[in-house]
Amino acid sequence: MTNPTTVTVLGLGPMGHALASAFLAAGHRTTVWNRTPGKADDLLARGARAAGDPAEALAASELVVACVINYAAVHAILDPVADTLRGRTLVNLSADTPRAARDTAAWAAGHGVDYLDGAIMTPVPSIGTAEAVLLLSGAEPVYRAHEGTLAALGGTATYLGTDPGRAAAYDVALLDLFWTSVAGMTHAFALAAAEDVKAGELAPFAAGIGRLLPMMVEDHAARLDAARFDGDDANIVSATSTLEHIVATAEANGLSAGVQREVLALFRRAVEAGHGQDALAKLTEHV
Amino acid sequence: MTNPTTVTVLGLGPMGHALASAFLAAGHRTTVWNRTPGKADDLLARGARAAGDPAEALAASELVVACVINYAAVHAILDPVADTLRGRTLVNLSADTPRAARDTAAWAAGHGVDYLDGAIMTPVPSIGTAEAVLLLSGAEPVYRAHEGTLAALGGTATYLGTDPGRAAAYDVALLDLFWTSVAGMTHAFALAAAEDVKAGELAPFAAGIGRLLPMMVEDHAARLDAARFDGDDANIVSATSTLEHIVATAEANGLSAGVQREVLALFRRAVEAGHGQDALAKLTEHV
Repeated sequence: MTNPTTVTVLGLGPMGHALASAFLAAGHRTTVWNRTPGKADDLLARGARAAGDPAEALAASELVVACVINYAAVHAILDPVADTLRGRTLVNLSADTPRAARDTAAWAAGHGVDYLDGAIMTPVPSIGTAEAVLLLSGAEPVYRAHEGTLAALGGTATYLGTDPGRAAAYDVALLDLFWTSVAGMTHAFALAAAEDVKAGELAPFAAGIGRLLPMMVEDHAARLDAARFDGDDANIVSATSTLEHIVATAEANGLSAGVQREVLALFRRAVEAGHGQDALAKLTEHV
Repeated sequence: MTNPTTVTVLGLGPMGHALASAFLAAGHRTTVWNRTPGKADDLLARGARAAGDPAEALAASELVVACVINYAAVHAILDPVADTLRGRTLVNLSADTPRAARDTAAWAAGHGVDYLDGAIMTPVPSIGTAEAVLLLSGAEPVYRAHEGTLAALGGTATYLGTDPGRAAAYDVALLDLFWTSVAGMTHAFALAAAEDVKAGELAPFAAGIGRLLPMMVEDHAARLDAARFDGDDANIVSATSTLEHIVATAEANGLSAGVQREVLALFRRAVEAGHGQDALAKLTEHV
């Protein structure tokens, strides 16, 4: 816990709203602003202040937290009022690419604004609880000055270093794993339905498949960092045969198999390069 | 445990070898055959018999288990010796499509062969242990007659019903989830490496993402079976923005993004159909 301070939250989508709620709950004097009004009523009832425009929102606090759709939206809000932000700290928890994060850090430096770039890796309900996972990167003194206040968001805040693009790099990589897996899950249920297998029938087995993933992640990472790709039983060439069955079954049932065809193409690239008997981690070199 | 019986295993790749080993360990008189010789030495030392050709292998046992690369390979072995198989039971644990399973069941019926089609959902080291998961489909009396012998393979054998394609349907759907997730993991590590994030640095967070999957599977399945797609915080439209960042970051680093472009196309199809605010389970209708 830290001494109460002044915090502004820009953006009151579900995540921004949860952030403001957590700052309020920790006793910080919290000012909020959203492009469209009417999102703050319950926060105002709990003591938040609503700013009439971005300049008023920035003037109210030493720490400004932005949580909007992407960095173009961040700049649309902040570029016209950059002078008001001078001397304050911007913690940008919006999501975008590592390059956009580095560009925004340079913009902030050019305007005398202390800057941290962050990524929230857990869903909205986690905010303010022990489950929250927040990644931050940027100048370390800026992080140390505000980590106490940011602790209001709950859980674990991990400082990733001075490259302001680093949190976004983790974010895109982790969400790559997440959304690609979701697409696989979605397609698996569509395939099952086409074969008259109910989702609830497949689910216990699909959950079992899902439980393999953390173990695979650890094995994959250890092999990559050691550059050790000696084959195991789950080699690359045997998966191509399975992927052919998956594509054939999807298309025979009138389903798309665009994702799975691209997955098969990845495995075939590795086989054609002579790595068919290697461990799956070798696939990372053929992306 | 059941009374010892006679079992033939056709195919001594890593999985077939593990099956033969488990039958031997359970005390069954086990005969093995493989297209290329030299795979059976340790099994012979433990009491297995090596057949000189498929006809001899089939004649040796009442139960014949096939575990080869696909059903074309099954037919290449068995079609010339179908008469020897008459009156015996074939349990086909090779992998292929549901359609190929149904065709092979019809072939077996036409030759007076009792038939079960199966899929092994766990890796080679699980065979003979409590971890093994075996799915079987086909005529129920055939399953009941042999479930005791098949128990030697360990773990849970689940009988899925009389449609001989059902085990293969589960198999392709579950492996669709598995291999698509592996492709996402592979790409995530490639993206991280391109941004100077070591695999071991990403791994703890990636394992955390992986641990969300079983919960997502249960939620997805419950929504699909109830046709309930009301939005939650993780809606479809917000993921499109993230997927655009992932594709942009991959391509800016000279990596392919073929899989991720297809994932994005899936999400966009759902948004364009007016389901952007729905729960992720709605994606299954847009595959």
